[in-house]
Amino acid sequence: MTVKSEFLKAPIEHVDITRDSVVPIVEAMGQMAYSARDLHRAATIYDRMLRDRECGVILCLAGSLISAGLKRVFADMIRNHMVDAIVSTGANIVDQDFFEALGLLDDDKLRELHIDRIYDTLIDEDELRVCDETIHKITDTLDPRPYSSREFIGEMGKYLAETGAKTGASIVLEAYREEVPIFCPAFSDCSAGFGLVAHQAARHGKPKVSLDSAKDFYELTRLKVKNESTGLFMIGGGVPKNFAQDIVVAAEVLGHDVPMHKYAIQITVADVRDGALSGSTLKEASSWGKVDTTYEQMVYCEATIAVPLIVGYAYHKRGWEGRTSRKWSSSLDKDEV
Amino acid sequence: MTVKSEFLKAPIEHVDITRDSVVPIVEAMGQMAYSARDLHRAATIYDRMLRDRECGVILCLAGSLISAGLKRVFADMIRNHMVDAIVSTGANIVDQDFFEALGLLDDDKLRELHIDRIYDTLIDEDELRVCDETIHKITDTLDPRPYSSREFIGEMGKYLAETGAKTGASIVLEAYREEVPIFCPAFSDCSAGFGLVAHQAARHGKPKVSLDSAKDFYELTRLKVKNESTGLFMIGGGVPKNFAQDIVVAAEVLGHDVPMHKYAIQITVADVRDGALSGSTLKEASSWGKVDTTYEQMVYCEATIAVPLIVGYAYHKRGWEGRTSRKWSSSLDKDEV
Amino acid sequence: MTVKSEFLKAPIEHVDITRDSVVPIVEAMGQMAYSARDLHRAATIYDRMLRDRECGVILCLAGSLISAGLKRVFADMIRNHMVDAIVSTGANIVDQDFFEALGLLDDDKLRELHIDRIYDTLIDEDELRVCDETIHKITDTLDPRPYSSREFIGEMGKYLAETGAKTGASIVLEAYREEVPIFCPAFSDCSAGFGLVAHQAARHGKPKVSLDSAKDFYELTRLKVKNESTGLFMIGGGVPKNFAQDIVVAAEVLGHDVPMHKYAIQITVADVRDGALSGSTLKEASSWGKVDTTYEQMVYCEATIAVPLIVGYAYHKRGWEGRTSRKWSSSLDKDEV
Amino acid sequence: MTVKSEFLKAPIEHVDITRDSVVPIVEAMGQMAYSARDLHRAATIYDRMLRDRECGVILCLAGSLISAGLKRVFADMIRNHMVDAIVSTGANIVDQDFFEALGLLDDDKLRELHIDRIYDTLIDEDELRVCDETIHKITDTLDPRPYSSREFIGEMGKYLAETGAKTGASIVLEAYREEVPIFCPAFSDCSAGFGLVAHQAARHGKPKVSLDSAKDFYELTRLKVKNESTGLFMIGGGVPKNFAQDIVVAAEVLGHDVPMHKYAIQITVADVRDGALSGSTLKEASSWGKVDTTYEQMVYCEATIAVPLIVGYAYHKRGWEGRTSRKWSSSLDKDEV
Repeated sequence: MTVKSEFLKAPIEHVDITRDSVVPIVEAMGQMAYSARDLHRAATIYDRMLRDRECGVILCLAGSLISAGLKRVFADMIRNHMVDAIVSTGANIVDQDFFEALGLLDDDKLRELHIDRIYDTLIDEDELRVCDETIHKITDTLDPRPYSSREFIGEMGKYLAETGAKTGASIVLEAYREEVPIFCPAFSDCSAGFGLVAHQAARHGKPKVSLDSAKDFYELTRLKVKNESTGLFMIGGGVPKNFAQDIVVAAEVLGHDVPMHKYAIQITVADVRDGALSGSTLKEASSWGKVDTTYEQMVYCEATIAVPLIVGYAYHKRGWEGRTSRKWSSSLDKDEV
Repeated sequence: MTVKSEFLKAPIEHVDITRDSVVPIVEAMGQMAYSARDLHRAATIYDRMLRDRECGVILCLAGSLISAGLKRVFADMIRNHMVDAIVSTGANIVDQDFFEALGLLDDDKLRELHIDRIYDTLIDEDELRVCDETIHKITDTLDPRPYSSREFIGEMGKYLAETGAKTGASIVLEAYREEVPIFCPAFSDCSAGFGLVAHQAARHGKPKVSLDSAKDFYELTRLKVKNESTGLFMIGGGVPKNFAQDIVVAAEVLGHDVPMHKYAIQITVADVRDGALSGSTLKEASSWGKVDTTYEQMVYCEATIAVPLIVGYAYHKRGWEGRTSRKWSSSLDKDEV
Repeated sequence: MTVKSEFLKAPIEHVDITRDSVVPIVEAMGQMAYSARDLHRAATIYDRMLRDRECGVILCLAGSLISAGLKRVFADMIRNHMVDAIVSTGANIVDQDFFEALGLLDDDKLRELHIDRIYDTLIDEDELRVCDETIHKITDTLDPRPYSSREFIGEMGKYLAETGAKTGASIVLEAYREEVPIFCPAFSDCSAGFGLVAHQAARHGKPKVSLDSAKDFYELTRLKVKNESTGLFMIGGGVPKNFAQDIVVAAEVLGHDVPMHKYAIQITVADVRDGALSGSTLKEASSWGKVDTTYEQMVYCEATIAVPLIVGYAYHKRGWEGRTSRKWSSSLDKDEV
Repeated sequence: MTVKSEFLKAPIEHVDITRDSVVPIVEAMGQMAYSARDLHRAATIYDRMLRDRECGVILCLAGSLISAGLKRVFADMIRNHMVDAIVSTGANIVDQDFFEALGLLDDDKLRELHIDRIYDTLIDEDELRVCDETIHKITDTLDPRPYSSREFIGEMGKYLAETGAKTGASIVLEAYREEVPIFCPAFSDCSAGFGLVAHQAARHGKPKVSLDSAKDFYELTRLKVKNESTGLFMIGGGVPKNFAQDIVVAAEVLGHDVPMHKYAIQITVADVRDGALSGSTLKEASSWGKVDTTYEQMVYCEATIAVPLIVGYAYHKRGWEGRTSRKWSSSLDKDEV
């Protein structure tokens, strides 16, 4: 029997960064060069963000992260008030987190599917339909008007709270409970899009629910205006990174003289040379007035390795103790415009 | 005097693939291994797409392409009916193409700024304001309802047609003239977002223009339903790639049994190992029922080198002759729902 | 004061994997996907190599590793009999390890220089001369004949043992003491080359010391013939990886029917698509009869992060206890041909 | 029938850069940004090297290049005196060029094998033995003393000249004819190593041929001393790049105050962030006194695409006309020490 087959039989468990401390190994990495040293510095900056009680922490997620075993890390961040807002690709929030929360996939099966990157291919057609139909059903219950993705994902969280999530930890559900807003600026670009298209097609000629990406941007900008000190914890690049960086400029356009993001860390394996934004350095963002460079660090490492080390470090340093929920989600609902 | 300074003084010209034939070098590459061979195969597949008169060609753009010198290539593709729909990041369409078309940057300055990747940093605040205000102004003229990005970009093209574009070639303007729809599924994630946020803030409490990303997805899906044979020409990955691939599934959700994308080529330097979609192989899309594998090819090369060779090859092979505009943009307007 | 300046003032310490256990975090990574899971599997394979008492462990080093903070990790591997032979680029062994052991750079200065990748640039000309001259001096004491790099590095170790190394841990010195052979198949391609060229120029027309790379290959092959069960622990690719893999074939050429390498792990960020060997997969080596695929794993991660986790895991699992030195270096000296 | 199968049936031809001019497309790339612009600048620097009649051009080869379809490009460079010395990995020179020149593989088969990167795996055991035995046979005819790889490869060229190469173009044969020295600093790290090990084993206890890597370095250094103005054309990184850069320092160690390499271009897809030398920038080499930065350019592109464009450009610019062979190989033989 090979190591591989033995490995697959091992009991599955999402990585729990609250259990064993990684502080010693991360501190040891701080004495080294290259990526180890960068990772340590990013971890200390995240810890510093949490200790700075003025700072609102915005977590940006791109890439397959939830189903890769990081769901519990993010859920623990929400539960312990280590994050105040999330900007994500739709795939993490809908296809991975919400889909599992509906009980359509158990963790064992999910992980097994994931191992050879065949996740997408083996999901049962029928199960997919259940997810589409749930989104469609939620959409049909809503007042036909433009929604921010933040509002819509809030409705998804409410649905889970009322019907009961089928998994131990759900980002959508935990964020709903802690009033942490989740934005997906390209919300149709995931399986939620299928349910929304189905809703719009069925409402032919009648008022429909629509997903207003401008409203997403407006809402996130208003958070920056209300809470001037901010830090970005970016995993991957893409739209979430860009979107969260740009709110500094958007606030200026609205006539508010807000400071740049005070802290910024990014974990990525994107290459700086390909002309795309995912790999653009934080220095560039800085020269454009988006990110201060005093506390910024890019870490060139795949997220499954770097995230448990960085979040684990900050968790066990306990700089977050005494931090409470900023309740940004309900704050946005209240001043609805 | 160094080569560098001499180089910067040279007269600027967007690459014109219609002038000199690259057919011999691309054919020679077909005899080699690795990326050269892949590039040749991608070029022949694009030529094949154009000769297949049933096939609708969807061009997907991610990364800084327009301002990197490829604007004229895409404009020539539109003018010669070598493309039927475009799905892009907002940065290419708004920050680069539309911004230049307003005459805010001349090509010389643009390119010079670009050279050291400082494009974003040196744009004048005042010029930026002009772009924001133009978007804001266009938005204010519209009926306050949800728009697809395709509709909104059509209004931008109309504005350029009426006020006169200040540059030789503009994608937005050419696409407007040829009735080629342009979709930006994350439209607020570019400087258009600033103008839209300004509009929504100014319309406090009153009906507003909103950007409906679900409508984007629904419209592109309807094109697939109407024109079952499709080919994807993807430059970079990100949201445009994902969005265009997913319309096959969305069509099924709406009850239409459409075939997979028949042709698919992608140019990227994203790494397959980072868990993000940009580098996911076309084989994966295939196993999920989105892309047929008979005519698919990924080319691992930076776009500024690969695009002129691939499009230049197809241009000089002249398989596109006799191809006419599908007028998909007005077709969508007509069956507006 | 910025985090950066604070960071630089922190006391320097090479990472000590023997102090705190990383077993829990590495085991947690085994439950995840992508690189985390690969890293865990590589760690378990290394542990398995050590528990397999027939297996000779060959460590391959390419890239700047010693001065990046991994010196103590490798020294601990030697001291605890977790490695039986080393194949390395010359830079790690001569420019970094031996250079420091001569006391020409203290650890603090070395690391500081390294931080911005300026290591090579700031070394004092005079200090460089001392290293060259030491190599030249050692060479002059030798019998003028062809040497394997293994023999020459053994003389460097003897020199350190006799004159006293100036640093806490030196790979060259520890390997000399534990009779672990070190091979640098491209030995002239480092600052040792300068001393050797000076020697050969000075010996104009007279018998000279020469560095016989064929002898290196012959010696390493003889180790494979004597100890058929072998495992490779490869950090980076390049010549060391290729050289160590090829001894299986070389043994066959000499008429010995030896098995493939039974275990193989590689840590690299080289890309599989560039046509170079560093990124060639272990599957390829396997199809060529060099590496068995039952226990093989590639980890896509920068070495400063992955090595402390993998070696730390194996150290704290203590599968190496009871393992003794194979004394391969003196074994090769004895059957000198 | 798929494009793929059609493609495989196409007649095979090594890329011939002398036939069709790529000057227009390369010049057009000079107007763009990113890699296209870098490629153009590298091409103009190579043209400039050739027009500078003082300059000796050193070509560095790493990665699978010969069998990927670039053999004829390099042969044309030698025949037209566009290169004065070559530093390469052994695989290009022995496993690919010499192996084919022995007629053991025809081009069709070679390329087909290469296509799915299975080159190494499908070579017939018996054919491999012929190559080993040829090397072994050549070695046995030599005086038993230390040889530089340059001397040994010269003997291989002589063997081909006397017995007749079986392929249209062989680097080893053309270089022998034009007296262009070829250095493989890690010569045993290719299938030549098998023949050399067989020779040394058979000569047990008797004087043997040995491969002296220090002599390689000494010889290349002497060329730099004799011909102070030099330019590097590096394809890939690894040992050849490092070796060729270091001769500037080695010349200083020998007491000669030589200038840095005046020109340097490198084509690579290695990442600057991995701590290995392949991706280290030319700026670093510069700060260490090895490479002048006035005329240096790195091109991030796979070699099969970039090399035909860069060499084709320089060929058709015809700056090499009137350039003659420097006969460095016989020059080194004459002052043999």
